[in-house]
Amino acid sequence: MKAYTYVKPGLASFVDVDKPVIRKPTDAIVRIVKTTICGTDLHIIKGDVPTCQSGTILGHEGIGIVEEVGEGVSNFKKGDKVLISCVCACGKCYYCKKGIYAHCEDEGGWIFGHLIDGMQAEYLRVPHADNTLYHTPEDLSDEALVMLSDILPTGYEIGVLKGKVEPGCSVAIIGSGPVGLAALLTAQFYSPAKLIMVDLDDNRLETALSFGATHKVNSSDPEKAIKEIYDLTDGRGVDVAIEAVGIPATFDFCQKIIGVDGTVANCGVHGKPVEFDLDKLWIRNINVTTGLVSTNTTPQLLKALESHKIEPEKLVTHYFKLSEIEKAYEVFSKAADHHAIKVIIENDISEA
Amino acid sequence: MKAYTYVKPGLASFVDVDKPVIRKPTDAIVRIVKTTICGTDLHIIKGDVPTCQSGTILGHEGIGIVEEVGEGVSNFKKGDKVLISCVCACGKCYYCKKGIYAHCEDEGGWIFGHLIDGMQAEYLRVPHADNTLYHTPEDLSDEALVMLSDILPTGYEIGVLKGKVEPGCSVAIIGSGPVGLAALLTAQFYSPAKLIMVDLDDNRLETALSFGATHKVNSSDPEKAIKEIYDLTDGRGVDVAIEAVGIPATFDFCQKIIGVDGTVANCGVHGKPVEFDLDKLWIRNINVTTGLVSTNTTPQLLKALESHKIEPEKLVTHYFKLSEIEKAYEVFSKAADHHAIKVIIENDISEA
Amino acid sequence: MKAYTYVKPGLASFVDVDKPVIRKPTDAIVRIVKTTICGTDLHIIKGDVPTCQSGTILGHEGIGIVEEVGEGVSNFKKGDKVLISCVCACGKCYYCKKGIYAHCEDEGGWIFGHLIDGMQAEYLRVPHADNTLYHTPEDLSDEALVMLSDILPTGYEIGVLKGKVEPGCSVAIIGSGPVGLAALLTAQFYSPAKLIMVDLDDNRLETALSFGATHKVNSSDPEKAIKEIYDLTDGRGVDVAIEAVGIPATFDFCQKIIGVDGTVANCGVHGKPVEFDLDKLWIRNINVTTGLVSTNTTPQLLKALESHKIEPEKLVTHYFKLSEIEKAYEVFSKAADHHAIKVIIENDISEA
Amino acid sequence: MKAYTYVKPGLASFVDVDKPVIRKPTDAIVRIVKTTICGTDLHIIKGDVPTCQSGTILGHEGIGIVEEVGEGVSNFKKGDKVLISCVCACGKCYYCKKGIYAHCEDEGGWIFGHLIDGMQAEYLRVPHADNTLYHTPEDLSDEALVMLSDILPTGYEIGVLKGKVEPGCSVAIIGSGPVGLAALLTAQFYSPAKLIMVDLDDNRLETALSFGATHKVNSSDPEKAIKEIYDLTDGRGVDVAIEAVGIPATFDFCQKIIGVDGTVANCGVHGKPVEFDLDKLWIRNINVTTGLVSTNTTPQLLKALESHKIEPEKLVTHYFKLSEIEKAYEVFSKAADHHAIKVIIENDISEA
Repeated sequence: MKAYTYVKPGLASFVDVDKPVIRKPTDAIVRIVKTTICGTDLHIIKGDVPTCQSGTILGHEGIGIVEEVGEGVSNFKKGDKVLISCVCACGKCYYCKKGIYAHCEDEGGWIFGHLIDGMQAEYLRVPHADNTLYHTPEDLSDEALVMLSDILPTGYEIGVLKGKVEPGCSVAIIGSGPVGLAALLTAQFYSPAKLIMVDLDDNRLETALSFGATHKVNSSDPEKAIKEIYDLTDGRGVDVAIEAVGIPATFDFCQKIIGVDGTVANCGVHGKPVEFDLDKLWIRNINVTTGLVSTNTTPQLLKALESHKIEPEKLVTHYFKLSEIEKAYEVFSKAADHHAIKVIIENDISEA
Repeated sequence: MKAYTYVKPGLASFVDVDKPVIRKPTDAIVRIVKTTICGTDLHIIKGDVPTCQSGTILGHEGIGIVEEVGEGVSNFKKGDKVLISCVCACGKCYYCKKGIYAHCEDEGGWIFGHLIDGMQAEYLRVPHADNTLYHTPEDLSDEALVMLSDILPTGYEIGVLKGKVEPGCSVAIIGSGPVGLAALLTAQFYSPAKLIMVDLDDNRLETALSFGATHKVNSSDPEKAIKEIYDLTDGRGVDVAIEAVGIPATFDFCQKIIGVDGTVANCGVHGKPVEFDLDKLWIRNINVTTGLVSTNTTPQLLKALESHKIEPEKLVTHYFKLSEIEKAYEVFSKAADHHAIKVIIENDISEA
Repeated sequence: MKAYTYVKPGLASFVDVDKPVIRKPTDAIVRIVKTTICGTDLHIIKGDVPTCQSGTILGHEGIGIVEEVGEGVSNFKKGDKVLISCVCACGKCYYCKKGIYAHCEDEGGWIFGHLIDGMQAEYLRVPHADNTLYHTPEDLSDEALVMLSDILPTGYEIGVLKGKVEPGCSVAIIGSGPVGLAALLTAQFYSPAKLIMVDLDDNRLETALSFGATHKVNSSDPEKAIKEIYDLTDGRGVDVAIEAVGIPATFDFCQKIIGVDGTVANCGVHGKPVEFDLDKLWIRNINVTTGLVSTNTTPQLLKALESHKIEPEKLVTHYFKLSEIEKAYEVFSKAADHHAIKVIIENDISEA
Repeated sequence: MKAYTYVKPGLASFVDVDKPVIRKPTDAIVRIVKTTICGTDLHIIKGDVPTCQSGTILGHEGIGIVEEVGEGVSNFKKGDKVLISCVCACGKCYYCKKGIYAHCEDEGGWIFGHLIDGMQAEYLRVPHADNTLYHTPEDLSDEALVMLSDILPTGYEIGVLKGKVEPGCSVAIIGSGPVGLAALLTAQFYSPAKLIMVDLDDNRLETALSFGATHKVNSSDPEKAIKEIYDLTDGRGVDVAIEAVGIPATFDFCQKIIGVDGTVANCGVHGKPVEFDLDKLWIRNINVTTGLVSTNTTPQLLKALESHKIEPEKLVTHYFKLSEIEKAYEVFSKAADHHAIKVIIENDISEA
């Protein structure tokens, strides 16, 4: 089959590989229908993720059709349309029992397109299929479903829930990229009073307004931006600051705008330590959280979308075929030039 | 001044009384601008509330302008426009420290129009003014503010919060009267997947749909209605059942539709014991809650309305002047005939 | 092998049956080391549990040694000493994902000694072994471990946690039988100020004092008993009332002593509806909970016992051999006469 | 009257000052019975707290007898024995309504011995007396009560509650000084499985063991100490790390031992920023909290002490008279030499 694989730092290629097979009774084989590209895939190709070995098929978001299940799989059967979570969960280890699938200790956590083959291919082997796949409600679009593999639960679990967004609160989201926008969408499930998007790029800020942000703040001049945020919040700072970039400057921005009793929820993937102003913040009764998505909220999110309060389809800006995945990467790797947020890649190669 | 007072069972009248004066340093005197009538006022007039003495001015919802404050009042001054909470709170007793103002032990709880004079008058004495009054944001309408005295916090605190409504859950509200509709509105702050209104009256059910209910169920045939609700919830029953009538039949309906791990939140004022099917429910891991509103969520609700997710103004169906309050009572006491939900009564007598 | 089986209402017998075998890849076969008798076993024998079919081996509490595991079992291997939970959990259904194993939808929940063969036998087939068995810490006694199958998690989850026991609160437990005493023990993990045991039997109340109760109240005269409890709680009623009997009179006692904002946690297995005084309680801001144990707290309880704050061994009053199980039943069915709480039955038949 | 006042960096002195008087109707005047010294007092004298002006009477912990109350005070009267909280609370501002008295906006928060005169004197003016004073239960010793002014609620609210200590969890406390020991005591309300005290000083570690620590770890060699902690926690790190020193090295220790889903609760007063390893921790799903005590748990702690699970009296190592307060400072400022934890200073000057 055809698959997009990581080769070495700076190089990935679309190659022929063997079709995956069932290895354990809890595995399933899924024919991919639609997948997408995540910023993390770009990091892997750059060589930033040394745990990813040469030859690994990339991709950890997608939907498909079950082709075959192991004898230990009971929730799914051949022919089922499925949402494939970016996180595998054995359902029976120390962390899975606590709902923290991100840290599953038995072939789980974020392994697709990282430690095992991923979804930018015709077919996929899914470990622990009963806990990693989800049935798809009929009224949800494929676009919405693909967003539910990773980006929506990441924004929701690591931004909105850890940040404790609640009705009437004030929220600032730092970074109007895909994760920040996913946090912006899912924050609206809780009806905050103020939803302030902060970014350096006015285009991205305009996008945020069209996604439901109540205010935009350009942080090119951080001091001015910080003042704007205090002005918007009766001089108290925000109740929730969602960091969705992953660099020291954005963490610093968050710690400067957070109000007493507020929470800084880090969604960004950080590559460096940050300076944390405990000398100023020890007295402020604040919380700082971090996390990798567990997708344990997927059942909830599948239902919450029924409320039609948010439209995850808005995140999809471009469409490609799997046979032209290299073009998709070209566009996504220059997202700003193309005003790209998320791309949909449809499997046009394998037949149903 | 003019005031609408309870006289004896079956009789209330609009009479001349002395203008209230400051009695304690924490009191304020407020000129009423707008008030309304609550179902409880009708109960008092019927004689159902023996703790209410003859001569008491009725009414516990309203907004006004501060006329005078005691020397211990620091949050308000003459001329401030204020929301007057239906519940007074001393801010320093056992229950107030826990946020349960409903059970304030020092001239607090629900006393307006019950144990002390209320708001269907030109002027009002407000005990513990700093904890009973709220400043009003400029962008909220008077109608929305009057709804914030009692009905919205009741639906929110006793229905939505005690019921633990959350994104993606299923909610049934039993009773499409003012309290049920307030619960229906404020439940939407949390984006439930299903918001099912249950009532005997098709007109009221239509109203509920226009207020954001996703489904309506006429319960004239309870068995059929219960089946409809199981059909809507994958055969599991609802996550949250909000009882907003206050009679044994509606409690019974709730206990029959509640799903495993679900919550029955009683908002109704019950006059009789109910039969509680513990023989069937002991194994279902359910919760049942009760409560009188504390209005401790008023600061949150004032901000949550900024999200413009709900329009409390929709609850207001009729307008009257204070000088014609008897007409307002006529209409409200036959609410069904007049399709009345809440009436606004404007003080046209006292000058600013 | 030898096993104690339900035959028909009024009759159970110790008979020869086939040794169980692996049926699904997720099964394990465990040689029972120690088991016990639960009040529910007596109910089954009386014929009160019609879902239990003739020929079913009784018993749902015990520890053992793994004899054999299916190929889908990864957490356990032959020779492992294990705690066997009274509740089976598939780990992948709607309810298991929420941690409510009591309502597992795939060969789970309380099925041992009820819908499938149980533990009063030499050997046991354990469905979903990875989620139903637990490794046993070396420093815990067999007695403590057997108490962890059902009675301690029942008292903890359905009494203490649903009741929201917390440091400094007041707790009344109605019923000083095994479940009430388990609640009494596990409540002490949270350091309540007052732990009041209520019962009709002075002997049982004395036992409660020796288990850590701070006060005892004999409820032979309910009105006097209720007054005693108000006197103990500054006239406010208790914060938590744990119902551990399962009859209307004990529920009624609970609803009469519960304080504002308090919780009545029902642990008893109720056979009849109860009268619930919503006319008095609608205004009290109370909570009422029910539930079947999920044993999802077993990992926590295994560790909490390390704190040595409680001694579950105290629950064990009598010892028997499996070969003399009929004698054990004789004693346990007349528990009051023998001052019996829990009996330990040791497998003296099958060799290691 | 006599009072111990801050003069200038490096100098404090015991001088004659005017007796305080009622300034607002909500004030009370209290004759101090017993007070103590806090590490913060030493910082003020060193000149580290520039907000404290010359002439301010030091001290923010103590008990006394009410001498006089303003006309707005209703909970207390002349002659009442009272616990004086280190934090004043108006009970009616934005933060007080949320229970965050630490950030009270109207003559509240930590102001005693800092922004207004404190308790190392014969008499004290107490603002917002109804919310700042507490009645004292008869069965609590004066020593326990003095510990309830600041140190026990600090350890409890900022360490134990923010850290989310719960039955069966593992806790490491970094710093076996007064605050660390207060956290160690109050953590025991929740029965953690492991309570590991970490310090550089073996004497202080021995003290911790006698206060209920289950393990001690000397962190002179941090790498070795970190390994010890992972060994104690199945290689997972601790669930809760309570930082009770306030320097970068101890924060760093905490972030290196915290397990997945764990919480680092900062109780220390930090004077410098710290390096926060978000590059390693972004993926660990951790929480970091900070805070100044609010003493909103004082009513709970007063009752929790009734459980007799902990003995706060153990914190008191030395006794002095107010007339010899300079000697008390000598001892406390060389706490290690004297094995001093907390000193009690009794008012021997003013007559009852």
